[in-house]
Amino acid sequence: MNAAGDPSAEAERLLKRDAEWAALASAGRDIDRILSYWTDDAVVLAPAFAPVIGKAALRGYVENSFRIPGFKISWKSSEVRFSPDLNLAYMFGENTVSMNGPNGTPITTKGRAITIWRREPDGQWRCAVDIWNDGPRS
Amino acid sequence: MNAAGDPSAEAERLLKRDAEWAALASAGRDIDRILSYWTDDAVVLAPAFAPVIGKAALRGYVENSFRIPGFKISWKSSEVRFSPDLNLAYMFGENTVSMNGPNGTPITTKGRAITIWRREPDGQWRCAVDIWNDGPRS
Repeated sequence: MNAAGDPSAEAERLLKRDAEWAALASAGRDIDRILSYWTDDAVVLAPAFAPVIGKAALRGYVENSFRIPGFKISWKSSEVRFSPDLNLAYMFGENTVSMNGPNGTPITTKGRAITIWRREPDGQWRCAVDIWNDGPRS
Repeated sequence: MNAAGDPSAEAERLLKRDAEWAALASAGRDIDRILSYWTDDAVVLAPAFAPVIGKAALRGYVENSFRIPGFKISWKSSEVRFSPDLNLAYMFGENTVSMNGPNGTPITTKGRAITIWRREPDGQWRCAVDIWNDGPRS
């Protein structure tokens, strides 16, 4: 416990929130709720894509993703690290993205992600940066 | 100016420090000084590589990189964002890595990076996380 709160309780809260987000993204239906986990100025750096910056662009990015035949995303995060004031955090994640390849066979890629989260004035954590890349070929 | 200090002065200080680091890495000689910019527990997530975690592993990673024929790295960072207490920061970066391909011709890849920095007890900023991926093919 420090002056800003209890880091381990806050880490648990943040990981739970991230897991809720992942479940919504994996279900792939409620775009408004999915978008609500990002800050208004959030930046997503997806491999081989131009940076996606801000809510309007993120909406397009999510809508386009869900239109890809066979698209499915899942992720799991861990190891939350905070600033001492518990207002900025980052965590590590592992994600899996599937989509149908040219001949209809599913193609799955696995990535390692860093997400950076900000506790906003309403007290809620939102993701401000999301970047990932592919791990070693197994 | 806030209670923790002046964010714009601190951003300038941090970008200057990052530029010094980039110059040392680009010169590719002083491995001890290059390593001194990372925290002891730093994590580097390079595309297609297993995570490189901690100083000993980072030393091996840097030494191996500098042994690659034609290896050269450069980067430039911008847009520093702080936690309100100015003890945790992240910034955006663009990097260029060159090495000789199988037939000796240089191969150059450009990436977009996020680095996360921690102000350590000695007051110095050190990089705790470094992750990047390739941008869109141009």
